[in-house]
Amino acid sequence: MTSLDRSDPEGEIAKTVARVSNWGRWGEDDVRGTMNFLTDAKRLEAAGLVQTGRSYSLSLPFDMDGPQNGWRRRTNPVHTMLDTGTDAVTGIQGFPHGIGGADDVIAMPLQCSTQWDGLGHIFDHGRAWNGRPAESVVTSLGDGVTGIETVADVVCGRGVLLDVGRAVGTDGELPDGFAITEEHLEQTIAAQGESAAVGRGDIVLVRTGQLSRARRGVAAGEGWGGYAGGPAPGLSFTSADWLHRTEIAAIATDTWGFEVRPNEFDDAFQPLHQVAIPHLGLFLGEMWDLDGLASACAEDGRYDFLLTAAPLRVTGAVGAPVNPIALR
Amino acid sequence: MTSLDRSDPEGEIAKTVARVSNWGRWGEDDVRGTMNFLTDAKRLEAAGLVQTGRSYSLSLPFDMDGPQNGWRRRTNPVHTMLDTGTDAVTGIQGFPHGIGGADDVIAMPLQCSTQWDGLGHIFDHGRAWNGRPAESVVTSLGDGVTGIETVADVVCGRGVLLDVGRAVGTDGELPDGFAITEEHLEQTIAAQGESAAVGRGDIVLVRTGQLSRARRGVAAGEGWGGYAGGPAPGLSFTSADWLHRTEIAAIATDTWGFEVRPNEFDDAFQPLHQVAIPHLGLFLGEMWDLDGLASACAEDGRYDFLLTAAPLRVTGAVGAPVNPIALR
Amino acid sequence: MTSLDRSDPEGEIAKTVARVSNWGRWGEDDVRGTMNFLTDAKRLEAAGLVQTGRSYSLSLPFDMDGPQNGWRRRTNPVHTMLDTGTDAVTGIQGFPHGIGGADDVIAMPLQCSTQWDGLGHIFDHGRAWNGRPAESVVTSLGDGVTGIETVADVVCGRGVLLDVGRAVGTDGELPDGFAITEEHLEQTIAAQGESAAVGRGDIVLVRTGQLSRARRGVAAGEGWGGYAGGPAPGLSFTSADWLHRTEIAAIATDTWGFEVRPNEFDDAFQPLHQVAIPHLGLFLGEMWDLDGLASACAEDGRYDFLLTAAPLRVTGAVGAPVNPIALR
Amino acid sequence: MTSLDRSDPEGEIAKTVARVSNWGRWGEDDVRGTMNFLTDAKRLEAAGLVQTGRSYSLSLPFDMDGPQNGWRRRTNPVHTMLDTGTDAVTGIQGFPHGIGGADDVIAMPLQCSTQWDGLGHIFDHGRAWNGRPAESVVTSLGDGVTGIETVADVVCGRGVLLDVGRAVGTDGELPDGFAITEEHLEQTIAAQGESAAVGRGDIVLVRTGQLSRARRGVAAGEGWGGYAGGPAPGLSFTSADWLHRTEIAAIATDTWGFEVRPNEFDDAFQPLHQVAIPHLGLFLGEMWDLDGLASACAEDGRYDFLLTAAPLRVTGAVGAPVNPIALR
Repeated sequence: MTSLDRSDPEGEIAKTVARVSNWGRWGEDDVRGTMNFLTDAKRLEAAGLVQTGRSYSLSLPFDMDGPQNGWRRRTNPVHTMLDTGTDAVTGIQGFPHGIGGADDVIAMPLQCSTQWDGLGHIFDHGRAWNGRPAESVVTSLGDGVTGIETVADVVCGRGVLLDVGRAVGTDGELPDGFAITEEHLEQTIAAQGESAAVGRGDIVLVRTGQLSRARRGVAAGEGWGGYAGGPAPGLSFTSADWLHRTEIAAIATDTWGFEVRPNEFDDAFQPLHQVAIPHLGLFLGEMWDLDGLASACAEDGRYDFLLTAAPLRVTGAVGAPVNPIALR
Repeated sequence: MTSLDRSDPEGEIAKTVARVSNWGRWGEDDVRGTMNFLTDAKRLEAAGLVQTGRSYSLSLPFDMDGPQNGWRRRTNPVHTMLDTGTDAVTGIQGFPHGIGGADDVIAMPLQCSTQWDGLGHIFDHGRAWNGRPAESVVTSLGDGVTGIETVADVVCGRGVLLDVGRAVGTDGELPDGFAITEEHLEQTIAAQGESAAVGRGDIVLVRTGQLSRARRGVAAGEGWGGYAGGPAPGLSFTSADWLHRTEIAAIATDTWGFEVRPNEFDDAFQPLHQVAIPHLGLFLGEMWDLDGLASACAEDGRYDFLLTAAPLRVTGAVGAPVNPIALR
Repeated sequence: MTSLDRSDPEGEIAKTVARVSNWGRWGEDDVRGTMNFLTDAKRLEAAGLVQTGRSYSLSLPFDMDGPQNGWRRRTNPVHTMLDTGTDAVTGIQGFPHGIGGADDVIAMPLQCSTQWDGLGHIFDHGRAWNGRPAESVVTSLGDGVTGIETVADVVCGRGVLLDVGRAVGTDGELPDGFAITEEHLEQTIAAQGESAAVGRGDIVLVRTGQLSRARRGVAAGEGWGGYAGGPAPGLSFTSADWLHRTEIAAIATDTWGFEVRPNEFDDAFQPLHQVAIPHLGLFLGEMWDLDGLASACAEDGRYDFLLTAAPLRVTGAVGAPVNPIALR
Repeated sequence: MTSLDRSDPEGEIAKTVARVSNWGRWGEDDVRGTMNFLTDAKRLEAAGLVQTGRSYSLSLPFDMDGPQNGWRRRTNPVHTMLDTGTDAVTGIQGFPHGIGGADDVIAMPLQCSTQWDGLGHIFDHGRAWNGRPAESVVTSLGDGVTGIETVADVVCGRGVLLDVGRAVGTDGELPDGFAITEEHLEQTIAAQGESAAVGRGDIVLVRTGQLSRARRGVAAGEGWGGYAGGPAPGLSFTSADWLHRTEIAAIATDTWGFEVRPNEFDDAFQPLHQVAIPHLGLFLGEMWDLDGLASACAEDGRYDFLLTAAPLRVTGAVGAPVNPIALR
């Protein structure tokens, strides 16, 4: 494990990138990054993991009660009705033979709740995934190169839950500001046993327990607090090498921002993103609800499953909502 | 097969409902309708169908080029950026250590592209699924009872493609206005062989071929024409008994409106919806892109697969976008 | 002045309504309520008040920094770009001869910032303005009868500023919870002199000073606090008779909710609205920025002016944003 | 009048700019362009024009029936309800003492209906108003320099209607493709008489009659046709010198795009915009409904009036909706 110079995020990022960059690995034209690791063979293997047929949605609700607070115009979803049952019964809809209907619309940031970061979401010094100039990738028209639609059909494979909260934390939770290093990840894998082995093409789900904590706050009427953007447990910047070496296809957490917050530098903003997305080409999932799945895994000791987490097919999106389904 | 009185949709609907209603079948409090047929055992069986590990997205794109025309405020999605790569490279984002980002929002009807109708979408004479008064179910606040979130974790099971276009049509397509009856469905099943057998808990995908035709129009610069709301092939009103008897969990088509249009009555609007949703409690999928999957099925003669089609978890939605993944 | 029974808002409302109702005053078909008081003659008189040609916008900004907090899905405006200058300079817009462009969209509640309440905004026991059943007026399709468009061309006339904050308060501000009664209004008029006389067809602007206070909080980095929906100075329920007797066309305040908050009953929600909108047919303006205008009036002692405050012409709106211009 | 080289829009634009540029005219820091011509004295003079007190809204409706067709994501407004009268009467709103309410939201392009172009709307070779680099003015965060809020308080003054349709056209309308030159403008002024004289600080309204024609099409069930972006009468590119010389503060038309379409070059897109907005700093209004006002003017021969047309105060907007009120 590297020791970080807290005063020099830019230097540390550059050094890390020099070790882990995947630019060119799948050719100049690649738009799928680490999703290239997720093959048909991997999906076939994953289907074989299903033993009970029980399915788990890993999605938080999408509604006005969500965690967003408007930072950089990231609001919670506004869901409104075009037609309602109350309308229908007053007979104003004008349809024949007694039919009535309801219909609805939504306005929301694509990253307001359970979501995937796409490869166009983050740049490093003006460079997007595979070395492309950011301005040739994402304009006001969206991501014309690596829009989320490029992986809309493939995000389905072997999921592995690493319940770091349970394995390393207290009462199943890591405290805010806890940086999950490679050691913690390997310790969790060891504790969970064989089914938790992580390798090429896997989709890794890291449970920190912060969501469980935040949810208690909501239930207690205290609101979401700093869940969106405040202090949180999360991946250490130093885990970049592990993310690279394991050749995983994607990774998601139960937190707003994937990596530990405050970040591990004196003045920084999501430095691990800056390595993982543009350089590894790695897909990051955020705000996934892993609690129900984690309970089931803890009960029978099986930590891998078939995971289908295909993002909503929004053309040109740099992130997209998803309802991930784990099938055990 | 019943012979329909074209002048009396209300009477025909009432007669059909008398035969096929599922009200009370799963108790007074049920909110999942036919999704109750989709059990863990069914999902386990479905996982066993996977042979190649190849995945297919059955979702159309969500963007401004979609088929909607504004009818009843159903527009195409408007996807806009909160931050872009062009911004990032001008250095205006104010982030440290060279990180830049892009972020986006969307405004769209929940039924603008590939989607599930929820149980609160349609009423019959002021009654919603299971006999509830429509006004106690869907208000301006959304569907407080049968919102799509009630099935967010279960829509995963055995999918069966019935390629009626290929089996019954010409050059793989049914003409607009073609009513698919029970006979056509059974004829298709027979033609496709054993893997196409339909039974309790299955999710049936009916390909008419209209989408292939519409897409040619788009490619030729003619736009979507009447795809959204115009004449279309689709399920016959008379298929209600088959939908009921087979005990399927859900059914989807490659058309805008599921049922044949013009409808089979002199003056009618989606009469099969009026039976299927509030009375059967059946989930209807619309605007699914079945073409890629259909080619694969035709090639190797296997028509069933693991289908994961969990709707976006929008609280209180009467319909929801979905990116369905067929895994063969 | 009536003494209120704090435990019986419903009874007090009914008694007040019996005294002040305008139902039928302008015929069965009326859709403009008190705006009928605002005649061409009144507008002509108002134009004669202009002495300096100086104009004042009474609008707060519409942006994400506004006072809304999401209560009942009332968010602040989300303004996003369809095209930008950063895009234009990268040459991606595809326009000829060096032209580039920027374009934008907005999503917002119609009552998120400076606005008029329309006559369809509030009902009393299911009755809208002029006695119409609420369900025949406002459905999911909007207000089909008294939509704000019915007054889009007439809200222009004599404005009178009543700076109650300056006349009655301390340092120009009334404390939160201060109920402005008829006595306070008359005291202010008397203090301000002749130009502050209020009569038929006038548009009255009541400055409480709460906005000045809230703005100091924002400037100090404390945010808007309870400006949207919290305690506030405002019109007393007992002022209903004055609102009726003076025959004013409209009235606006510098607060979120026009009337005093907490309301003057043990358990109540905006009881003066319940009288003023459906029974008086009175147009209420909220979140108007009166500070600049008030300074000018205080300086030269002229409190009336030409006010043009035509709402944005949104068909069927029950409220609408406005940029009111006072011309002195 | 200059004769244009149809094959060289870029050259013609450059030559015109050399003659008419206002860069630096009001200092390096100016953000109001020609709105600087509109002084208090001008507004005072305008107030003196009011003779009858009759007010005219020059705004089209904002609703789904508008002229937009989705070009570059410019849709018509989507207005939805947060609460309705149908809801209120079912008693689901949970408010005390019989109060009920309705509330609404809107999602719309800021230039979807009657609107002002702001100074950040158009660039010439990457330069915005006053010579600023476009990328330093308009980013994804909006127009940080010349956002429409900079003129929110001043757009009120002497309006002059030039009814070119009536003066020059047939049956009050100019045909599509008709280029209005300086000669036509002067001919109209002469025909209309003294009250139509145009000078410094005036807001000029040019009626072509195309909207009257489009409206007949809508009434006939034929829709808006090409009103949004198709062929239209409008200002000739050659009128740039007149726009400059007259020192008007702003100009608006009853068409979608202000200038004649098709444009007067072989391959061009809105070349007059490219001169008028970034170089003159001139505010352009589009889709104004001038028909009612024009009838009144034609009747009594008075063509000037007090015009209040303050844009909705959307921070950073490059265009903004407006409900212009002409007071005669």
